[in-house]
Amino acid sequence: MTTWKDFADLKAVQRLAELARSPYNLARPDSLPPERIANYKASACGFDLLYAAQRIDDNVLAALQELADEAGLLAQFQAMKSGAVMNRIIGHASEERQVLHTASRDIFSDAPLAPAATAQAKEQLARLKSFLADVDSGAVCNEHGQPFTTMLQVGIGGSDLGPRALYVALEKYRLPGRKAAFIANVDPDDAAAVLASLDLSRTLVNVVSKSGTTLETRTNEELVRTALAKAGLNPLRHMVAVTGAGSLMDDPARYLAAFHMYDYIGGRYSATSMVGGVTLGFALGYDAFIEVLRGAHEMDKAAEQPDIRANLPLLMALLGIWNRNFLGCNTVAVLPYSQALLRFPAHLQQCDMESNGKQVSRTGTPVTWKTGPIVWGEPGTNGQHAFYQLLHQGTEIVPAEFIGFRRSQHGSDITVNGTTSQQKLAANMLAQSLALAQGREHENPNKHFAGNRPSLVLIAEQLTPYAMGALLALYEHRIAFQGFCWNINSFDQEGVQLGKLLADRLLGVMAGGKELSPDAPESSLLQAAGMAA
Amino acid sequence: MTTWKDFADLKAVQRLAELARSPYNLARPDSLPPERIANYKASACGFDLLYAAQRIDDNVLAALQELADEAGLLAQFQAMKSGAVMNRIIGHASEERQVLHTASRDIFSDAPLAPAATAQAKEQLARLKSFLADVDSGAVCNEHGQPFTTMLQVGIGGSDLGPRALYVALEKYRLPGRKAAFIANVDPDDAAAVLASLDLSRTLVNVVSKSGTTLETRTNEELVRTALAKAGLNPLRHMVAVTGAGSLMDDPARYLAAFHMYDYIGGRYSATSMVGGVTLGFALGYDAFIEVLRGAHEMDKAAEQPDIRANLPLLMALLGIWNRNFLGCNTVAVLPYSQALLRFPAHLQQCDMESNGKQVSRTGTPVTWKTGPIVWGEPGTNGQHAFYQLLHQGTEIVPAEFIGFRRSQHGSDITVNGTTSQQKLAANMLAQSLALAQGREHENPNKHFAGNRPSLVLIAEQLTPYAMGALLALYEHRIAFQGFCWNINSFDQEGVQLGKLLADRLLGVMAGGKELSPDAPESSLLQAAGMAA
Repeated sequence: MTTWKDFADLKAVQRLAELARSPYNLARPDSLPPERIANYKASACGFDLLYAAQRIDDNVLAALQELADEAGLLAQFQAMKSGAVMNRIIGHASEERQVLHTASRDIFSDAPLAPAATAQAKEQLARLKSFLADVDSGAVCNEHGQPFTTMLQVGIGGSDLGPRALYVALEKYRLPGRKAAFIANVDPDDAAAVLASLDLSRTLVNVVSKSGTTLETRTNEELVRTALAKAGLNPLRHMVAVTGAGSLMDDPARYLAAFHMYDYIGGRYSATSMVGGVTLGFALGYDAFIEVLRGAHEMDKAAEQPDIRANLPLLMALLGIWNRNFLGCNTVAVLPYSQALLRFPAHLQQCDMESNGKQVSRTGTPVTWKTGPIVWGEPGTNGQHAFYQLLHQGTEIVPAEFIGFRRSQHGSDITVNGTTSQQKLAANMLAQSLALAQGREHENPNKHFAGNRPSLVLIAEQLTPYAMGALLALYEHRIAFQGFCWNINSFDQEGVQLGKLLADRLLGVMAGGKELSPDAPESSLLQAAGMAA
Repeated sequence: MTTWKDFADLKAVQRLAELARSPYNLARPDSLPPERIANYKASACGFDLLYAAQRIDDNVLAALQELADEAGLLAQFQAMKSGAVMNRIIGHASEERQVLHTASRDIFSDAPLAPAATAQAKEQLARLKSFLADVDSGAVCNEHGQPFTTMLQVGIGGSDLGPRALYVALEKYRLPGRKAAFIANVDPDDAAAVLASLDLSRTLVNVVSKSGTTLETRTNEELVRTALAKAGLNPLRHMVAVTGAGSLMDDPARYLAAFHMYDYIGGRYSATSMVGGVTLGFALGYDAFIEVLRGAHEMDKAAEQPDIRANLPLLMALLGIWNRNFLGCNTVAVLPYSQALLRFPAHLQQCDMESNGKQVSRTGTPVTWKTGPIVWGEPGTNGQHAFYQLLHQGTEIVPAEFIGFRRSQHGSDITVNGTTSQQKLAANMLAQSLALAQGREHENPNKHFAGNRPSLVLIAEQLTPYAMGALLALYEHRIAFQGFCWNINSFDQEGVQLGKLLADRLLGVMAGGKELSPDAPESSLLQAAGMAA
C-alpha cells in the first residue's frame, strides 16, 4: 500500500508556501498575454479547462506537480480504482471499505481494474436492460395494461442529489412520454406536492436505500404506499427498489424488482450505479445511461495522466489546494452557464463537503491544515444579476469555476443584436472571468474593481449524456485527489451521525416514549420552540 | 440627517473586540441551561427566534445594544422608511435615490411614513385588483374567449429571484386552475424547456424590467413573442409589463397593461411591489398578495423596537456582525426545514450579497473591516444527508440559521414510529442546532465532535402568505441594519457593471462588428474557448 503522508510534512508544501508570498498578479497590465491564455489550457473528454486566470505561474505549476508526485496522488487513485481499502482510518474503528464507484463504469474494456465489482455492475446493468425492455414492451405495465410514463425516485442524500442533478441536466433527452420525479425531504409538503402532480396509475416508484432503513426514505415510502392504496392501486405493480443485497428492501414480496447497490460505492458517488441507473434508464433510455457511463469512464482514464497539465481532475484539485491552503480562500463558487446544470452545485456540495469536510487525518490525528472548502453556486447569468456584486467588490475572495457549452441542448435560439442567446451566455461567462481577473481602475472608488480574483473556465461543445458523465467524474476525482493530498478519508461521513442521534432522542420525547430531565437542553429547546408535548 | 460613522471608529466595536477574546463556549457541559434557552428567545409576527446557541452572553448582548445605539441603526432605519436618500456615496457620483420598499406595504395605516410612495403603491394595487377582476370575470381572456390559467414571468435578478422564491413557497395557496412559471436566464434551453411545458394559448406573459432595456429580459421577451406568433396567437392579448413609468416598455400598443415600478425600490427589494404583485396576485389571488404585504408591514413595524432583544431583524443583524467581524466567520448557511422555501436561499444570496458585498464606505473610502458574508444554503433534511458533514467536522466554522414551522402547509402527513413527518422535520432541525453547539466527546477521533459552532432557530406556526411576508421583511431588514452598521451603501450594485461591459465587448466581436487587437485577452480567450468567429 502507498504510504500516506501528512499534508504539513510534504516538502512541496513548504515550497508552495514560499511561492504564495508573491502570487501572480492578475490585475497587472498585460497579465493575460495570448501565450499564457493558450498555454494554460488542458483538454480531456471534450472539455477544455482554461486556467490562465488563476494566480499561478510556471513555478507554481512545477511545485504543484511536485506536490502531486510527493503525495503519490496518482498511485492512490490507481489503488482506489483497483479495489484498495481506501475508506479507513488507520488505528481506529472505521468503515474499512473499498471505494469502487469507478468500477460501475469500467464496463467497456476486457480487463477492468476491479473485475469482481465490474462483474456485479454488468450483472445489474443486464437486469436493468431486461427490465426496461419489459417496460417498453408492456410486459411490465399497470393494472389496466397501460404503459408507465413516470418514475418517482424516493431517496435522500446520495440517493437523490446526484441522480436528480443528472436528470435535470439531461431532461432534454427524455424518451417520448417518459419523465422522472423525486421525493427526498421528510417534509410532508414536498411529498404531497410531488404526489399531487403525478398520475399515480402510470407511475413506477423507485425506492432507493442501501440499508433499507433510512428514516426519511422509509417515511416517504409509507406515504407513497398510502397514496397508491388510496388510489386503488396495487403497490406490487408499482414499486421497485434499489438496495443492498439481502437488506430489508431486497424483497420480491414487496417490490416488482430489486436492483442492487454495494458497500464499496458510497452514496455521494453512486449516481453511475443502479442508484442513478434505474431512473435515468427509465426516463432517458438505457442507451443514454450507457453514454453517461462512457463519459465518466473516459474521464476515469484521463485522470491517470501523470503530467498535471494534461490531467483535468488532478489539475483542478491542485489549483483548488493552491487557493485553499496557500491563498487562504475558504469557499469555491461553481457557476454553470447552463440552466440544465441547476442542481449540479447541490450535488457537488454534497459530494465535496461530505467527502472533504473532515478534521482528522487517515491516521486519526487532528489535521493542522485546512481541508475541504465550502462549495456553493447557482447558474450563471442569474447569478450575475444577484450575488456577483460580492464576487467582484466584496471583502472576500471567492475562486470561481465557470462551466459552459458552445451549443445549446434544444437548438431553439434567437438572434438579437447580431448574436444568439447561446453566444450571449458564453460571452457573459468569459467576460466574468476577465473582469474578476483584471478589474478596472476608476476615479470613483465605488466603480473601482481591484481585480486579481481567480477563476477557471470549463467549456465543452454541448451538454450531452456523455459530457454529463465526464463532468460528474471530473469533479468526483478532483474531490478524491484533494482528499488524498490532505490525507483525510474522503469516503466516510461520521459527521452526520450526531445530529441523527439527537433527532432520535427528541423524537422519542415527542412520541411520548422517552422521559428526559426537565433541565436537559432537549426539553428546554422543545419548550422554547413551542413543540413540547 | 443622521451622521454616518465608520464601523472601525465605533467605541462599541472596541468593546466587542475585547469580549471576542473569550466568547461563550457552547461545548462546555451545562452551557445550555433551561433559563438560557428560555431567555435567549425573541418573538415578532408569529416568529420565534431562539438564539441560545450563539456564542454570546449578556455582556455581548449589552455591547451589541451599544453598537446599535452608537451607530444610530434605528434612526437610519426610520430615515430610510421616511424617504431619506439612503442610496448614495457622499462626495462621489452615485444613484442618489430614496429606498422605499417599505412604502409598498405601508398601506394599512392612515398616516404612512412616505405618503407619496405609498400613494403610488396603492394606485398600482388598485389597478392590479381591477385587472385581476377582469381576468376572473373573463373580460380579459384569450382569442377563443377562454380564461387564462398561467402567468409566465420574464425577468432576471430582482425581477425573478424574489417573486419566484415567494411563489414556490406559497404554491400550496394557488387559486384553482392557476399557476405561474418563470424565465430568467438568457440560456435558450431554459426558455425552451419552460415554453414547451406551457399551453401558450392560456398563458399571460408578464415581462418585468424597470428600464425596459435589460439584455436577458429583452432577449427572452423576443423568444416568447416568436413562440406566441408561431402558435398563431396575438401578443397584444397575452403580454403585460411591469416597468418604469415612461420606459420603452410602458407602451399600450405592445402590452395589454403596464404596471409601474419606481426608482426608489431596488430590484432585490421589489418582491412586495408590482414586480412580485402581478404574478403572485394572478396565481394566489389578490387577497393572498395583500396578506404577504401585511406580514411584511408588521415586520417593518416590529423592526422599530429600540431594545435589540425585542427586535428580530436588528438582533439577527447584530448576531451576524458578532459572528462576521468578531468571531471571523465569512459565510452564513440558511437552512430552511421546509421544501417550500427551496428558492429562498437563492433570493437571500442576491438580497444579502448584492447589498452588502461592498468595498467602500458611504463616504467613498475603502473599508478596513469585513462587510457582507457569503450566504448559501439548501433545505434542511436534504442537507443533513449532504454537506452537514462539513458543518459539524470541517475546518471552517459556519454559523447556521435554521428556519422551520410547527405545522405543514398541506396537512397531509403520516405517522411512522409514533411521530408525524412534520414532527420529524422540526425535531431534526432542533437536533442539528444542539449537535453543532454541544458536540460530543468520543475516544475515536473520527467520531469526536468539537461542537461550539453557533446557530439560531427561527420557528413559526405555518408557512402562510402572512408568514412569508414577515420572513421576507425580516431578512431585508437584517441586511439593511448590517449595511448601516458597516457604513456601506446596501442599495447600489456597481460591482455587476464591469462584467456587463466586457460581455458587450465580447459580443461586439462575436457579432463581427468590433475589431480587437489579436493580443487583447478577449481575443485570446475567445480563441482558447473555441468561440472565435
